[in-house]
Amino acid sequence: MVGGGQLARMTAQAAVSLGIGFRVLATSPGESAGLVTAGTQIGDHRSIDDLTAFAAGCDVVTFDHEHVPGKHLRALEQDGVKVRPGPDALRYAQDKRAMRERLAGLGLACPRFATAASLDDVTGFAAGSGWPVVLKAVSGGYDGKGVWVCETADQAAEVLGHGIELIAEEFVPFERELAVLVARSPHNQAAVYPVVQTIQRDGICREVLAPAPGLGEDLAVEAERLGLAIAAGIGVTGLLAVELFQTRDGLLVNELAMRPHNSGHWTIEGARTSQFEQHLRAVLDLPLGSPGLAARHAVMVNILGGDDPDLYSRLIHVMAADPGVKVHLYGKAVRPGRKIGHVTVLGDGDVEVLRDRARRAAAYLRWGREEE
Amino acid sequence: MVGGGQLARMTAQAAVSLGIGFRVLATSPGESAGLVTAGTQIGDHRSIDDLTAFAAGCDVVTFDHEHVPGKHLRALEQDGVKVRPGPDALRYAQDKRAMRERLAGLGLACPRFATAASLDDVTGFAAGSGWPVVLKAVSGGYDGKGVWVCETADQAAEVLGHGIELIAEEFVPFERELAVLVARSPHNQAAVYPVVQTIQRDGICREVLAPAPGLGEDLAVEAERLGLAIAAGIGVTGLLAVELFQTRDGLLVNELAMRPHNSGHWTIEGARTSQFEQHLRAVLDLPLGSPGLAARHAVMVNILGGDDPDLYSRLIHVMAADPGVKVHLYGKAVRPGRKIGHVTVLGDGDVEVLRDRARRAAAYLRWGREEE
Repeated sequence: MVGGGQLARMTAQAAVSLGIGFRVLATSPGESAGLVTAGTQIGDHRSIDDLTAFAAGCDVVTFDHEHVPGKHLRALEQDGVKVRPGPDALRYAQDKRAMRERLAGLGLACPRFATAASLDDVTGFAAGSGWPVVLKAVSGGYDGKGVWVCETADQAAEVLGHGIELIAEEFVPFERELAVLVARSPHNQAAVYPVVQTIQRDGICREVLAPAPGLGEDLAVEAERLGLAIAAGIGVTGLLAVELFQTRDGLLVNELAMRPHNSGHWTIEGARTSQFEQHLRAVLDLPLGSPGLAARHAVMVNILGGDDPDLYSRLIHVMAADPGVKVHLYGKAVRPGRKIGHVTVLGDGDVEVLRDRARRAAAYLRWGREEE
Repeated sequence: MVGGGQLARMTAQAAVSLGIGFRVLATSPGESAGLVTAGTQIGDHRSIDDLTAFAAGCDVVTFDHEHVPGKHLRALEQDGVKVRPGPDALRYAQDKRAMRERLAGLGLACPRFATAASLDDVTGFAAGSGWPVVLKAVSGGYDGKGVWVCETADQAAEVLGHGIELIAEEFVPFERELAVLVARSPHNQAAVYPVVQTIQRDGICREVLAPAPGLGEDLAVEAERLGLAIAAGIGVTGLLAVELFQTRDGLLVNELAMRPHNSGHWTIEGARTSQFEQHLRAVLDLPLGSPGLAARHAVMVNILGGDDPDLYSRLIHVMAADPGVKVHLYGKAVRPGRKIGHVTVLGDGDVEVLRDRARRAAAYLRWGREEE
């Protein structure tokens, strides 16, 4: 797996059970996955030499992020390396304009969008779709970075001044956000997890509720169909996470990711097969595991860094306060607002009680108190 | 953790979530745990120099087996190393005579036993308890090795001829075998898992049914009390597994282990807190996790090695046949009869259906067919 972040770390954990060799290409030995993986290689995912050297020891190469240049992925493939997902699919996670055009081509519902190379482009788009206009970096954005909600032409002008490639999208007044996670293998086997609700704040995922509370059967099936259609339509191998807007009029596709995804961390305990094991099965072309729920409800809350780096002393209190909460720490240095772990709570009862337990635990780990 | 076998491997997997540093002292880098752990140290657990060097980088030292000499454990403690479980407790997992004497001293029900230094000792014991007599090596036995059921004095004489230290025990005509798993921390917090039934063949654990089917409330409470009384009575820190005989007249203590145990592998998916995480919490003096069930039933079946070393090709068929079975492979070379992994199946329905699924998967991984 290229990339040594928490997604690689949790994939390494899943690989232990499968009895397969798992190696990471990390930028430093102290990265999240490097801390827990045997034989980590250190290198730069933007260097074809480093990628080639890493791939030499691998049956299959996969990724914990979208940042490997497409030309390198194609060069690896030409050398006979099995790259999963392949460059033709990954492109749609790397380039938001290509993604929007492809999804439109597949006839799938997206927000209206246009190229935003100039202020005229933006004001012209706003004339049709109204303000605010959402400007998005075509590539490189994550966790709310690379997304600007512009209320006025002046604000848009400021964003255009950054000099990066942008697209404009209509601002969608959604009711809530959903996500659907699909695995697809080279054999064309696919499996879809129950649709979840995601709750973001400041562009960062804070909570995931699985399955999405109160989601009607029709919308759930529609979301699953969207996920499966996109996975097949763009030829994903491995996991595909589709972030959706639920609006009064139905579902719109927001973003795609082709790797284990924050919206699927609940599956470690909450599903029969975790998304990390499922990603490995899919990229290795092993038969997929059951995506069924292991409890009626699962709630995942991200742990963000606070001001005090001494996480361990707070962990003790969280464990004492709630012996049933599952804490996952990523071994990352604590920095304010940084994702450093997550907690999951499972149960068959009231989902609001589970949310409360998970939020208290995450808040205590961040602040040393149970409120945010 | 001293020892690089599958117990250390699965403990390493649990350590990932806790965000703690976890290191293994293994005899070779290719050992089960060494394959998946960063910074494995190679050394001999019988060498005080190797143990001291390993302990220098650790806050706490624990074990995946009982084979570190007691004098070395005491020397480490005198150097200020936190050894958990400590030598005074571990002694009762290392020396079966000391264990029997201590349990008798605690007033806990055991099979009748006696020292068996000579044939006279054995025939004298048999005069009171009858034949067969069970002879056990005082130290070093595992998986049925070091245990001989002798029907006659001639057979006993042959075992005595091996020249190892032995005890004699009465042969217990048990109805079935049970096991209870307790965690205990230096703070004296204790947690006990639901009592399980274990099914052995040729001295090797083959199946574990959690919770033990049809076990009456009284016997379950009695087994849990036994586990808690032994853990406190001998001062265990970490996990204690107590193997029990269920007889017409009640429960008798068979064996003790002070580490994660084969009878607890089902907890990885089947309990809110796996035994491996629980062992880490206990030896690190963290608050213990919930030992509650994650489903109504869990069945674990060990995978033994067959004649064909190509496990991976059979894994594909098992995954395709049953997407809900959880396979755990240990990365060990396949040798006939060797424990190389296990499978777990969870469910709320008929436990015999779960057993059938788990046994088919384990048999296929061994033989390439679904029957044993």
